[in-house]
Amino acid sequence: MPSPRKNILVTGAAGYIGSHIALCCLLSGEYSVVTIDNFSNSFPEGLKRVTKIAQDALPADATEEDKKALEIEVFRGDITLKEDINQVFEAYKSKGGIWGVIHVAAHKAVGESGEKPIQYYENNITATINLLSIMEKYEVYRIVYSSSATVYGAPKQIPIPETSVLAPESVYGRTKHMSELILKDVCDSKPDLWRAIGLRYFNPAGSHPSGEIGEDPRGKPGNLLPLLSQMATGKFAEEGLKIFGNDYPTPDGTCVRDYLHVMDLAQGHVDALAALLRDDIFQNQASGTGFGGSGGKYKAYNLGKGKGMSVLQMVEAMRKATGFDYKYTIVGRRTGDVPDLTADPSLANKELGFTCKYGLEEMARDQWGFNKKYPQGYETKK
Amino acid sequence: MPSPRKNILVTGAAGYIGSHIALCCLLSGEYSVVTIDNFSNSFPEGLKRVTKIAQDALPADATEEDKKALEIEVFRGDITLKEDINQVFEAYKSKGGIWGVIHVAAHKAVGESGEKPIQYYENNITATINLLSIMEKYEVYRIVYSSSATVYGAPKQIPIPETSVLAPESVYGRTKHMSELILKDVCDSKPDLWRAIGLRYFNPAGSHPSGEIGEDPRGKPGNLLPLLSQMATGKFAEEGLKIFGNDYPTPDGTCVRDYLHVMDLAQGHVDALAALLRDDIFQNQASGTGFGGSGGKYKAYNLGKGKGMSVLQMVEAMRKATGFDYKYTIVGRRTGDVPDLTADPSLANKELGFTCKYGLEEMARDQWGFNKKYPQGYETKK
Ligand SMILES: NC(=O)c1ccc[n+]([C@@H]2O[C@H](COP(=O)([O-])OP(=O)(O)OC[C@H]3O[C@@H](n4cnc5c(N)ncnc54)[C@H](O)[C@@H]3O)[C@@H](O)[C@H]2O)c1
Ligand SMILES: NC(=O)c1ccc[n+]([C@@H]2O[C@H](COP(=O)([O-])OP(=O)(O)OC[C@H]3O[C@@H](n4cnc5c(N)ncnc54)[C@H](O)[C@@H]3O)[C@@H](O)[C@H]2O)c1
Repeated sequence: MPSPRKNILVTGAAGYIGSHIALCCLLSGEYSVVTIDNFSNSFPEGLKRVTKIAQDALPADATEEDKKALEIEVFRGDITLKEDINQVFEAYKSKGGIWGVIHVAAHKAVGESGEKPIQYYENNITATINLLSIMEKYEVYRIVYSSSATVYGAPKQIPIPETSVLAPESVYGRTKHMSELILKDVCDSKPDLWRAIGLRYFNPAGSHPSGEIGEDPRGKPGNLLPLLSQMATGKFAEEGLKIFGNDYPTPDGTCVRDYLHVMDLAQGHVDALAALLRDDIFQNQASGTGFGGSGGKYKAYNLGKGKGMSVLQMVEAMRKATGFDYKYTIVGRRTGDVPDLTADPSLANKELGFTCKYGLEEMARDQWGFNKKYPQGYETKK
Repeated sequence: MPSPRKNILVTGAAGYIGSHIALCCLLSGEYSVVTIDNFSNSFPEGLKRVTKIAQDALPADATEEDKKALEIEVFRGDITLKEDINQVFEAYKSKGGIWGVIHVAAHKAVGESGEKPIQYYENNITATINLLSIMEKYEVYRIVYSSSATVYGAPKQIPIPETSVLAPESVYGRTKHMSELILKDVCDSKPDLWRAIGLRYFNPAGSHPSGEIGEDPRGKPGNLLPLLSQMATGKFAEEGLKIFGNDYPTPDGTCVRDYLHVMDLAQGHVDALAALLRDDIFQNQASGTGFGGSGGKYKAYNLGKGKGMSVLQMVEAMRKATGFDYKYTIVGRRTGDVPDLTADPSLANKELGFTCKYGLEEMARDQWGFNKKYPQGYETKK
């Protein structure tokens, strides 16, 4: 008989990254998943498909109980409201409690964050504080946090180590940086109880190879890959593709980013949950960022491939995957863009056992996989 | 007939500094005051006395209406709850609206902040975000914020200009720094609407010369002057006075701080309210702190005397004021203490018209004035 799964609360599990995290948690055999999501940028349908994929992966002799353990309990709620979070923890008191939290839910559009700072601070900071407050109330002291490479701003050193100065250049980036500082302070306040890991994502791409779940942003995608993928379905044909600057100091002049497959990224969270139980990783703190030396158990890791790809390389990869003949125009540089954002992921490799199994070709294939199968995303009529 | 007063919401007006700010607003003749306070660290009595002092200062021919305008409307409420803040703004819709906000309410104990970070972030950050959100809803775009010299951490340059690097070294300091960053982002988002001034207080001391209002912390005071003043009433006799280190690189070896009279500090807020209306001060932004260059109308000012006083000098000043023979022992340095925190207040002098009218002797006299008259603080039975 398998040992009972630990209950993990994944906030925002219906979203792009959260759904893949939920899937990897279920596939690990270790965890069952509960989520709170207000579906402000996602659909409940995604969560059903996560369960379906995980159930399909069960061995033929799996019991009904095994299947049931893969169902995701969904609380429709808003994490800016403490009562809504409280409800989840209260409900789980009689179900063995929440073992740990992966805090994914947030607003994430850099440009919009500068226009609506109050909403961003509320959704990304007040919500984080609320969550920590309720966790403390229910004595749940383990958390993995979705941070972002934007905390580095324009880094001095490429590839970027975790010890780089944190100097975010947008409201969004500041909400991620402040959340990390708050987590660090909370861990420092009770080193014997709290443990937290912040994962600084570089550029997630692709989706589960089944094409059943994927990135389904509302409106025109702000990021390159979902845009290219949707363009291959015929969308945004008139507007075409704009490339912002080809005179950067990079091999082909266009900006270089560190794309990693979302399944690798998601698996990094399962790695981090296991790492929370280890003492050694918290002893050797990264220095230079104001983090460390306090005895508290907070640590941040880069999740990236450690290999940068230029905009033109990504367009070419998507052309191969989709067969679509992308037309693009080069326009002026966009304010705030930096030439190269490539991670140094060696700390995560070493201490979390994090690895990237998927290559560029698979990222492009799986990005397209979802849009090809579901050109209107989760709202596609079958 | 005098022009009608503008309604100012002072959060936390029942507290030590808030009560003096409320008083200066009333004495200015320009403003009437409404407050929201949960009395977590204060008593409603203080607000009644503020009104009384202001009424006593009216000319002999003042009308009942003149007197009534000095009453402070009190909403007992908690600013971590949006509904509570909303109630105030909603109530004022029919009373000419809130003209501007002075956001004073916060938790302020540095040591405690490290032990209870979640409560501090909630009370000092969530609350600030809540307030800004409700202000935006009611289209109130003017705010003066109670920041602190703790945002500078251990500064490289003495006296400290506003352009110093912000590197707070405590949870409390980070809540003040983050609040400033949030205010700045909010001002940047709508430069035509939002205007905010952050006032970085150095060491407020004393109280209104009447001795009717003053500093009445619960438990043993964490700050030097209230402690000395309470000791003169016979309290904490057994514990005695501990001076943390006399081997600092200062004239007499004890730490140097920039004490200013709370009436001067409070008047600085009235100056700041007027300055909110000026465009010129926002054009010439301080650089070097990540602040400036954006066109947004946020600006931070030091409020200090620009003259430091050592611990031993303050003990001597209080001895003269109280006649109490302080016994002290020198103990080891306290972690986190820096030798000298003296403000460069020249920017506030120049742009806000801020000046310090009271000297050291008056600070000591007025610190003692309240405790002498009310040895048990606001709970003193008369
Ligand atoms: N996608 C990226 O490129 C990227 C890069 C770095 C970091 N991140 C971070 O990863 C996390 C997930 O990003 P994503 O791309 O999956 O975004 P997403 O919008 O697809 O998912 C976010 C999910 O959170 C939910 N949510 C948002 N606010 C909520 C609230 N107040 N209460 C309840 N649910 C709420 C949304 O409905 C959605 O399901 C975010 O924290 C984001 O900042 C993303
Ligand atoms: N006193 C100092 O030495 C000093 C120095 C620098 C900055 N400051 C700042 O000045 C401000 C006022 O300090 P003070 O010395 O007057 O403190 P105080 O504790 O005397 O006053 C704070 C007031 O706010 C109220 N309050 C706190 N949390 C509240 C909440 N959630 N809802 C409603 N009311 C709430 C308290 O009841 C109290 O009346 C604070 O922001 C503090 O950080 C103080």
